[in-house]
Amino acid sequence: VKALVVDGGLSLVTEHPLPVPDADQTLLKIRKAGICNTDLEIVAGYGGFTGIPGHEFVADALTGPLSGQRVVGEINVACSACDFCLRGLPTHCRNRTTVGIRDHPGAFAEYLALATSNLHPLPDSISDDAAVFVEPLAAALQVLEMVHISPGSIVVLIGAGKLGLLVAQVIHLTGAHLKVIVRRSKPAQLLQTWGIQTFERDMVEAQSADIVIDCTGTQDGFADALALVKPRGTIVLKSTYVGLAQVNMSKLVVDEITVVGSRCGRFASAIRLLESGLIDTESLIEGRFSIEEGLLAFERAAQPGALKYLLEF
Amino acid sequence: VKALVVDGGLSLVTEHPLPVPDADQTLLKIRKAGICNTDLEIVAGYGGFTGIPGHEFVADALTGPLSGQRVVGEINVACSACDFCLRGLPTHCRNRTTVGIRDHPGAFAEYLALATSNLHPLPDSISDDAAVFVEPLAAALQVLEMVHISPGSIVVLIGAGKLGLLVAQVIHLTGAHLKVIVRRSKPAQLLQTWGIQTFERDMVEAQSADIVIDCTGTQDGFADALALVKPRGTIVLKSTYVGLAQVNMSKLVVDEITVVGSRCGRFASAIRLLESGLIDTESLIEGRFSIEEGLLAFERAAQPGALKYLLEF
Repeated sequence: VKALVVDGGLSLVTEHPLPVPDADQTLLKIRKAGICNTDLEIVAGYGGFTGIPGHEFVADALTGPLSGQRVVGEINVACSACDFCLRGLPTHCRNRTTVGIRDHPGAFAEYLALATSNLHPLPDSISDDAAVFVEPLAAALQVLEMVHISPGSIVVLIGAGKLGLLVAQVIHLTGAHLKVIVRRSKPAQLLQTWGIQTFERDMVEAQSADIVIDCTGTQDGFADALALVKPRGTIVLKSTYVGLAQVNMSKLVVDEITVVGSRCGRFASAIRLLESGLIDTESLIEGRFSIEEGLLAFERAAQPGALKYLLEF
Repeated sequence: VKALVVDGGLSLVTEHPLPVPDADQTLLKIRKAGICNTDLEIVAGYGGFTGIPGHEFVADALTGPLSGQRVVGEINVACSACDFCLRGLPTHCRNRTTVGIRDHPGAFAEYLALATSNLHPLPDSISDDAAVFVEPLAAALQVLEMVHISPGSIVVLIGAGKLGLLVAQVIHLTGAHLKVIVRRSKPAQLLQTWGIQTFERDMVEAQSADIVIDCTGTQDGFADALALVKPRGTIVLKSTYVGLAQVNMSKLVVDEITVVGSRCGRFASAIRLLESGLIDTESLIEGRFSIEEGLLAFERAAQPGALKYLLEF
């Protein structure tokens, strides 16, 4: 089985063993998978993960009750028994593994065995290309689960990359006054196509946002968010990265800012929204590579300003 | 006029000019004032303040409509005209000055001129000693303004110093399950007297708190709070300090933690609560010094584990 493997760097392995599904798992044949910034961070050492990365995918179920169906899969595998699972927070399960991120093989391989209860069959109206975005779109929607963004909110988004462009589309649907700060022309053009206002950093006043969403994926994002948010406002953190950020905690206290972290979201909501046709995912795809060309795909995905690169099987 | 003055260090000035009140100000004769950690931070350079520090006080009004009455004073002087003032957030006024903290003389002097609209007359039932605690008690109550702490909440408080001991008493009144982490015997004994559970750090499980309140006033507090809070839980920041903290932002994202800064609170609530007799302030007082002994009082207040030192006039 061909697979990309992280082990102090990324390499292509051509004879990785075929996964054998447990009784509660389904064997999946991956159709397509997407490279996300977390994958790039994992190759850089985030979380100390070793093994097959990859957590955005669409696949065919080969075994189990969904056999023969096209599916996407939730990435957190929960124990169903710990206190967080019992409180209805399976994505925070104390014993969880996470596909391609923590103690669980990922989707950058021809086959993957995944808990059957994590799978969602896909309606025919969602293409393979769009289906790869179910996971990041669910993560984008999680912003709205964690924070009430109302039509009257002034929202500034920083970091118009892969995830930021999905978050922007989701926020745009709320009717909020959304301002996206962009540095590059490619995301600026996309956003304008979608009817979303773009600004250069200097054009957005300090302390002018009710809510700032930080999708920069860098340590510098937070200081910028702190400058942009109003007193009593909210900063939503949407990115993980290696290392610690230097934070002016006193400003949080003095301005009574709320900071909310937000991670994985619900697949069902993302599937509904993709079916509605309200989200443009196709424009986010910049390249397609076979698994054999996986290292090249990662190289391209790591270019500054790169959007989505797909691996095809 | 005798005053303590910060100017690259703290000194006692004996011939400071008598303040002349503006039309909208009242001239106050200070009766007592309390030294708080912010004052110690200010002497250490926080906020770049120069002039007379001090913002916890009780005084006699010598002029204006409250002349002859004993009063306490809100410390943020607002412009009443900026967007934050007009939104009902005068403590966040864009043009605000803050008594003894920002562009406004403080209370460690025999006299202070302060906006009359900032003053609250005191009921006779509140002693001068207790009145000095109106400002920090209001700041403690602000935790409850910013975060809903319910009777079922598991709350862990770290940093059982001057402010922490007030916050603990306030949280205790909510019926929440409050656990205070203490290192020193003095605060431990006080808390136990009040019927509040105390713990050594090692005795509190990681990820066990719905809400962690960080009153440590140090950069290390946040990492500790992050270890103690449950996924989807809340960290309340209650302290300001010089410098930046190193923060693991990725953990905020992965565990979907909310961080809330909290600063000054409403004097009216604090006065009501002091009148009710439900808060023990007297046990927090460790020493009393005349203004002439002010430098010695600051030295004592800066000792590790010191509780409240009062300056008397």
